[in-house]
Amino acid sequence: MRVAVFGASGYTGLELLRILLRHPRFELAVVTSEQRAGEPVGDAFPSLRGMLDLRFTASADATRLAREVELAFTALPHAASAPTVAVLRKAGVPVLDLSADFRLHDAAIYRQWYGEHPAPDLLPSAVYGIPELHRDALRKAELVAVPGCYPTSAILPLAPFLREGLIETSGIVIDSKSGVSGAGRKLEAQYLFAELDENCQAYKPGHEHRHTPEIEQEAGLLAGGPVRVTFVPHLLPTIRGIVTSVYAQPKKMLTSADARAVLERAYANERFVRVLPAGATPSLAAVRGSNFCDVAAVSDEGNGTLILLSALDNLCKGASGQAVQCANLMRGIPEATGLLDAALVP
Amino acid sequence: MRVAVFGASGYTGLELLRILLRHPRFELAVVTSEQRAGEPVGDAFPSLRGMLDLRFTASADATRLAREVELAFTALPHAASAPTVAVLRKAGVPVLDLSADFRLHDAAIYRQWYGEHPAPDLLPSAVYGIPELHRDALRKAELVAVPGCYPTSAILPLAPFLREGLIETSGIVIDSKSGVSGAGRKLEAQYLFAELDENCQAYKPGHEHRHTPEIEQEAGLLAGGPVRVTFVPHLLPTIRGIVTSVYAQPKKMLTSADARAVLERAYANERFVRVLPAGATPSLAAVRGSNFCDVAAVSDEGNGTLILLSALDNLCKGASGQAVQCANLMRGIPEATGLLDAALVP
Amino acid sequence: MRVAVFGASGYTGLELLRILLRHPRFELAVVTSEQRAGEPVGDAFPSLRGMLDLRFTASADATRLAREVELAFTALPHAASAPTVAVLRKAGVPVLDLSADFRLHDAAIYRQWYGEHPAPDLLPSAVYGIPELHRDALRKAELVAVPGCYPTSAILPLAPFLREGLIETSGIVIDSKSGVSGAGRKLEAQYLFAELDENCQAYKPGHEHRHTPEIEQEAGLLAGGPVRVTFVPHLLPTIRGIVTSVYAQPKKMLTSADARAVLERAYANERFVRVLPAGATPSLAAVRGSNFCDVAAVSDEGNGTLILLSALDNLCKGASGQAVQCANLMRGIPEATGLLDAALVP
Amino acid sequence: MRVAVFGASGYTGLELLRILLRHPRFELAVVTSEQRAGEPVGDAFPSLRGMLDLRFTASADATRLAREVELAFTALPHAASAPTVAVLRKAGVPVLDLSADFRLHDAAIYRQWYGEHPAPDLLPSAVYGIPELHRDALRKAELVAVPGCYPTSAILPLAPFLREGLIETSGIVIDSKSGVSGAGRKLEAQYLFAELDENCQAYKPGHEHRHTPEIEQEAGLLAGGPVRVTFVPHLLPTIRGIVTSVYAQPKKMLTSADARAVLERAYANERFVRVLPAGATPSLAAVRGSNFCDVAAVSDEGNGTLILLSALDNLCKGASGQAVQCANLMRGIPEATGLLDAALVP
Repeated sequence: MRVAVFGASGYTGLELLRILLRHPRFELAVVTSEQRAGEPVGDAFPSLRGMLDLRFTASADATRLAREVELAFTALPHAASAPTVAVLRKAGVPVLDLSADFRLHDAAIYRQWYGEHPAPDLLPSAVYGIPELHRDALRKAELVAVPGCYPTSAILPLAPFLREGLIETSGIVIDSKSGVSGAGRKLEAQYLFAELDENCQAYKPGHEHRHTPEIEQEAGLLAGGPVRVTFVPHLLPTIRGIVTSVYAQPKKMLTSADARAVLERAYANERFVRVLPAGATPSLAAVRGSNFCDVAAVSDEGNGTLILLSALDNLCKGASGQAVQCANLMRGIPEATGLLDAALVP
Repeated sequence: MRVAVFGASGYTGLELLRILLRHPRFELAVVTSEQRAGEPVGDAFPSLRGMLDLRFTASADATRLAREVELAFTALPHAASAPTVAVLRKAGVPVLDLSADFRLHDAAIYRQWYGEHPAPDLLPSAVYGIPELHRDALRKAELVAVPGCYPTSAILPLAPFLREGLIETSGIVIDSKSGVSGAGRKLEAQYLFAELDENCQAYKPGHEHRHTPEIEQEAGLLAGGPVRVTFVPHLLPTIRGIVTSVYAQPKKMLTSADARAVLERAYANERFVRVLPAGATPSLAAVRGSNFCDVAAVSDEGNGTLILLSALDNLCKGASGQAVQCANLMRGIPEATGLLDAALVP
Repeated sequence: MRVAVFGASGYTGLELLRILLRHPRFELAVVTSEQRAGEPVGDAFPSLRGMLDLRFTASADATRLAREVELAFTALPHAASAPTVAVLRKAGVPVLDLSADFRLHDAAIYRQWYGEHPAPDLLPSAVYGIPELHRDALRKAELVAVPGCYPTSAILPLAPFLREGLIETSGIVIDSKSGVSGAGRKLEAQYLFAELDENCQAYKPGHEHRHTPEIEQEAGLLAGGPVRVTFVPHLLPTIRGIVTSVYAQPKKMLTSADARAVLERAYANERFVRVLPAGATPSLAAVRGSNFCDVAAVSDEGNGTLILLSALDNLCKGASGQAVQCANLMRGIPEATGLLDAALVP
Repeated sequence: MRVAVFGASGYTGLELLRILLRHPRFELAVVTSEQRAGEPVGDAFPSLRGMLDLRFTASADATRLAREVELAFTALPHAASAPTVAVLRKAGVPVLDLSADFRLHDAAIYRQWYGEHPAPDLLPSAVYGIPELHRDALRKAELVAVPGCYPTSAILPLAPFLREGLIETSGIVIDSKSGVSGAGRKLEAQYLFAELDENCQAYKPGHEHRHTPEIEQEAGLLAGGPVRVTFVPHLLPTIRGIVTSVYAQPKKMLTSADARAVLERAYANERFVRVLPAGATPSLAAVRGSNFCDVAAVSDEGNGTLILLSALDNLCKGASGQAVQCANLMRGIPEATGLLDAALVP
């Protein structure tokens, strides 16, 4: 099955190439990059030298490119992505969009965080791409909004507690720590090695980060009513990975064993969500380069606080791996196909 | 003034040597290390080669060593430290103890977390060494319990809010991220470079870490009643530094400007606590190798949550720098003497 | 085909598990570890949780274990490895040994660097496992000595120049820089994160490192006479990877284009050796987690010096990946099977 | 003594501020930055918040600024620096220039590597700022060309061997490894954390790097005749530091003890060059943030190769620390004033 990657020269695009290259059912046929159009992929990315015989093309003529493929991934910046998605959809190509453009169901909320939506008519058809939450819808989807990395890391441990009504929906605190690839290949001084190594700091604390409404949308759907969270992201001196610690108030006291049982019931049959045993905490290393999200739950009984922990690779389960997982579902391929590598450890 | 460092070959000991070497009033006269007794300091620590003409001695005969100095720092493991402190105090030497042995005023709480206290009779004379909270007592102290790195990072931003009764004393969440030197030079697999680089994970989540009772003791003194916190430390892939994010519920709504004003009022005249302006967040880089603790406050008004942020160098303001700050106070030397270096940036 | 990994809890053992788990023809049947015997693999290595349903066994009864498999990898410490290899070979199991025990053909040289050889009678049957040099012998081998990581990185760029007699065989300088996983999971203070991050230093300079005789043996075979090298390894603050810069004197002046042509001729048909184009230099990132060795050549014509550069992942092409490449050859499986992943970039 | 730093917002400029802030004899009076003119220094550099009450000014009116100070450091880009230096010199202000503009005595060689020289008439008055080589000239200098970081690291270990005629002047190989701050705060993709962490690679191998003619000039002066070197720099995943390994052929065989004695004789009275004892190798950690250059020598007798090793902090002894060391000499202040801090370890 021939596939395209639009915006293949960013970090999520590059990760898509890495994953798709060894996928037994998808064949990379079109890869686009405006800045690198015409250049062989292996010259632009030395890690791919000798691995695929393709040149980057410009994405301008998306209509023509659409005819060459049966499926497309779009990894373009938000607002730039929607128009390309519209062309592809018009040409009948199923799309997995890794931008933020189709994640928020409500165009008014999109406007508040990103500006006017470039293609609001497509919003109703978009399915939010967390298979563990929306598997049935994804099987029939033609347009998947692949979630942000932070939302995936926060929603997966929270989901069963919200769905079962076990925690208060106000006062939820989400303290996340992310490697810098989450910011993409942005040329900003703060992302230089000499600024970031041996450093760590909170940024956009409170209710400022654009992933906040996405978390609240999915949390609200699970809870059956509005959920307002306090989300504080931190920048880690790592390339990949997100660890998230969620603090919530249970409606009735939960022991650590109770809380772990909730996660185990929810994820017993999920291939990519691993519930850790008592005493273990999720680590970036255990998921580096893999499609797993490790989760754990601990109750601080003395303070009545439930602590939920998760770890995932922001480029894999937090972006491109999850996109391929959704693509497998869309095309009726076994969901884990091409995604079962162990983490790169050490 | 001749000083001794007992346990000088661990990381806090080494940091004491680095700071004391350029202190204009203290002269290193005795440095002890059991494993390295007899070895010139410059052979054991290449960074100190050519900088001081001293050999490590064993600490066994502390009574004799006590006669050679006018002040002593003890940077021994907990439980091992108290007996040496007792000998030094008996010999009339003022002591700054960097172990946990004299931080908890209540021997029963010490027992619960560390085992039987080795010298409970000395507890009443120990002063908890945060100058910003206990300056007057420190001026008269003969035994200072230098605080843990995590407690300093949590208490400094929390103190004015607790003292002024602005926040609820239950439901406080403290999410801390620390560089690995906080664990000392322990030979455990988890601290190897190949395990820790590009990694991050929570550990001892909830109410398990030994710094918890220390935080609760000081918070309780400030609040005038018991305080129960949820404390979750995380291990960062950095050598030094702690960033802490505290989440608390204000009794009456505070805007971000209100919250910042509280910090500014409290720390306007403090040399080592810097309150950041609106929009800035504390970072490890800005305090690396320095004695500063940077703090900031943000209100997530929609969720009614107050967010307090701090950053410090765990070995400096979080241990050895703070010890020297206390020593300056004890000996009537200007408090900032020898401690005004800027952070090593980049 | 059922395979065993002896000594599976070290870093090369763990890397074997990672690679073999997705190998379509080899099935992990036995994994041994003395310290972890009885423990499920996924408990010991969180990255493998949920990926294989095996427990570590002790290797004591190698004879019995030998009956359960058709092929064995031994990743035990040198001297400890040879006796296990002897048992396995006696039981008729083909072995790929990742220790140093069978790399040196001459037991006298082994003795000089490692002590008395534990199984000298097996030496004549061992084939040195660089497929690019010894492919035919490897196809028929029953015992493969998987090379050290440094030797692979030095020999691959040097081989065609030595074989064609283009460089002087004296005065060769090999300056290598390696990530710390090359030292294994050793509990030594020098490998702690706080000692190694932001650090770099030469060690065992000159003719002291045990990989030196291995380099000289293979260089000598290629040159048809003794070769004496100056080898200086350096420790990098990275988990994985080796970059090597070799300096040699050409017999007749070579331009950079000449030198590159020599590499291209030699490696045109090699899947895992990539000759970089003019202007590009090998980097760790481009090979991280992959089985590639990138090589380049530059002539400093003014000084008459030939500069050869290489990069590989010490655990993959420098150890376990190369072991599987050899295993594929031994069993008549296409050589690249299970080894074609792109590097983990970023 | 009031001093100015022109170009204070780059990494060497920032390091000058850090050092000068605790220098007992120099007072920061003027700091310039085109991009940040008008901004308080503490807002631009959070590490300096609360430490100096100065705003950046534009450097346009250097004549006026010259009247406010008695000494100036210029840390501007090459070619941009010379015109400012010319203005300052005309106003009678002694200058320490950290750019490349006055390092090469020969304007023709400058032209070859950098383009036409902007102020060739000043070249004869410039003194190359390595105190260990040119102390007497520096005492009388009014214009100091502060050396590049790589040249300092290569020349210090080589100097006594060249001066005493102990090594061949052809065939010298200099293999250097540098932290990324040596490239300054350049916004290029290759310096992003996600590109550089866990990475290492050679760049500009052979005779391409602009520090090459500088090394050859000083080596030639020491040898009393032309010296041609092969210089291969490598980029390390560290913020600071350079380790250099030099390979040379001795004219007569030298044992390791002989070679070490040569270094010891040369540097016995030097405060900032530490000759390591047998068995020790220079490390970045031991010099991080300090003004030391550690050196060692080893002979690979079997191959007739002399190995010289060095480590320094590229921003300190490799730039700003050495600049202050020269400034102390120029103004008759004890040479080590303000420069005796121990490295930041761990």
